[in-house]
Amino acid sequence: MSDLQAPATPLPVVLTGDRPTGPLHLGHYVGSLRTRLQLQDTHQQTLLIADTQAMTDNAHDPDKVRRNVLEVALDYLAVGIDPAKSTIAVQSALPALAELTLLYLNFVTVSRLERNPTIKDEIHARGFGRDIPAGFLCYPVAQAADITGFRAHVVPVGEDQAPLIEQTNEIVRRLNRQTGRELLPEVEALIPTLGRLPGIDGTAKMSKSLGNAIALAAPEDAIRAAVRQMYTDPNHLRASDPGTVEGNVVFTYLDAFDDDLAEVERLKAAYRAGGLGDMVVKRRLEEKLQAFVGPIRERRARLAADLGYVIEVLAEGTERARAVTQATLDEVRAALGTFSLDTVRELHAAARRGAAGEPGA
Amino acid sequence: MSDLQAPATPLPVVLTGDRPTGPLHLGHYVGSLRTRLQLQDTHQQTLLIADTQAMTDNAHDPDKVRRNVLEVALDYLAVGIDPAKSTIAVQSALPALAELTLLYLNFVTVSRLERNPTIKDEIHARGFGRDIPAGFLCYPVAQAADITGFRAHVVPVGEDQAPLIEQTNEIVRRLNRQTGRELLPEVEALIPTLGRLPGIDGTAKMSKSLGNAIALAAPEDAIRAAVRQMYTDPNHLRASDPGTVEGNVVFTYLDAFDDDLAEVERLKAAYRAGGLGDMVVKRRLEEKLQAFVGPIRERRARLAADLGYVIEVLAEGTERARAVTQATLDEVRAALGTFSLDTVRELHAAARRGAAGEPGA
Repeated sequence: MSDLQAPATPLPVVLTGDRPTGPLHLGHYVGSLRTRLQLQDTHQQTLLIADTQAMTDNAHDPDKVRRNVLEVALDYLAVGIDPAKSTIAVQSALPALAELTLLYLNFVTVSRLERNPTIKDEIHARGFGRDIPAGFLCYPVAQAADITGFRAHVVPVGEDQAPLIEQTNEIVRRLNRQTGRELLPEVEALIPTLGRLPGIDGTAKMSKSLGNAIALAAPEDAIRAAVRQMYTDPNHLRASDPGTVEGNVVFTYLDAFDDDLAEVERLKAAYRAGGLGDMVVKRRLEEKLQAFVGPIRERRARLAADLGYVIEVLAEGTERARAVTQATLDEVRAALGTFSLDTVRELHAAARRGAAGEPGA
Repeated sequence: MSDLQAPATPLPVVLTGDRPTGPLHLGHYVGSLRTRLQLQDTHQQTLLIADTQAMTDNAHDPDKVRRNVLEVALDYLAVGIDPAKSTIAVQSALPALAELTLLYLNFVTVSRLERNPTIKDEIHARGFGRDIPAGFLCYPVAQAADITGFRAHVVPVGEDQAPLIEQTNEIVRRLNRQTGRELLPEVEALIPTLGRLPGIDGTAKMSKSLGNAIALAAPEDAIRAAVRQMYTDPNHLRASDPGTVEGNVVFTYLDAFDDDLAEVERLKAAYRAGGLGDMVVKRRLEEKLQAFVGPIRERRARLAADLGYVIEVLAEGTERARAVTQATLDEVRAALGTFSLDTVRELHAAARRGAAGEPGA
């Protein structure tokens, strides 16, 4: 009927990212990267390499953070993040986020920050005791700056991080109320339906520092060794014994990395019944992990051999992110009515033109 | 003997400024502006209009801060700050200061900030109670960013603000220790030898909000009314009575604004002896204040009639300040070894050129 096309609905905006404190591992894949590979087709996605945030508990070792920025970028690209669909940006190169953070700090009380359950847990986990760096206490506000700086609608977070989203929305509501309009969108937490991948030792969290991780680009022999050590059912001593599948890391990993669901169910049944040895299941898992990691490792090695492409991806993504976050900062400042030299200059020039009247009249 | 001149020793750097929350008054003149008029000849001086800092306790009323940025700039120029000698800059237009602040927050603990005596007093004075904005607690760190951002050697402060200088130097020493070099200079407090000007009601502090101030560009009749109300010696009821000079605001103001020291001493003696009425002394003070304020008010009115010049002074000063503070940020980051896309890019390009070898060889 008409040549006019309906305007494309803009994709919802999702912000995600990582603190660059080590190379990513299979836990990151299951917990977040896998989701991001889907989100990049359905959302306008930014992956923020959060080196500024990483400094809040690594100020004594900035070198660790520096070295890992490119490592994380390599991991992203190797696993299939497509820079034509997703923006990859470096946080420390986005001054507007620092400026938004300082501004937002005026809208949050110290006692509110101290009540944040995520911060309380993390202060405990990091052993800060009384010596909490001020930057660490304030990092939920910096996160609010990240999220709103990109005008994100959705942020994938772990269940334990929901309070960080609530902190962001409190700031959003406060600013919207004060400016009397929908200045910033409230954000929704996207809490993963699938659980997180345990460490190979069976502890709840896979972490490089706990020594229970398999890197996303682990060498063949490291994968072999990791599977060999992997925690199974400590009571399953002989192949003929009935075994337990729940909490058995080998099966948890098969659930995550073996696409043949029917075969996995068959193996579980056999294991439970007795007659299936750990070695058989582990051999299958190793095969699956080698097949999964192999191509990632190869792509990563190719990219690492000449970093030119990775650097350009980061430079372009950061440039894009810089424009977006600067636009948000300008809009927030204008809505709040803070001072702007540019605005004053324009108003003055306009007033002079007005006073001069029509030329030749 | 030689045409070569000795290289000019660079002037020491001084940073000073004001929170733009109201027009300046005679208390500011005596307490700081007077000193700055001298410092601009002996130091490399920057006057920072601290609108970002003013937001730490005015977030509910950004408009007040915004309106007063140009008022403070007008006051500076009217009183004789010379933009050819001093740099006048707007804090919110210097993103490097926000970035330095976020970085420094990682080197200061929350408990250290809570122990700061200046902050404790101000929290009490502002009636924040438990609801201290996080930005307010952190403002000594933002001040450390300002001071070090300009590499200031000297900062004029009131006696009650010495802890802020100490906080800055703790951060400086921490960074110098971690980077193993004199990355940033320690700063010295310049505590004024002359006392502060009391309010016209005799209270220790002149302040617009206390209603006891005389604006730097007060109209003639406001000066007349202020002098008429001025606190003298409440026991000096008749001209013939002996009077007290100490704490007598009229004499305190004469000390500050009457250049004829011998005549002021003669008047003090006569007042003490009895026989000199308040009205005679007040008439002399009014004459001196009208003579002092008159030219400031006229210059200010001329500048305010066409803000073009003031706006250009701010734009140029801010541009200069932007270059200085960005250079400091870059140097601090390089010394700490944080990530820099530019550096990585340069290193990569250099490595490629090296790998390619000499062309045609």
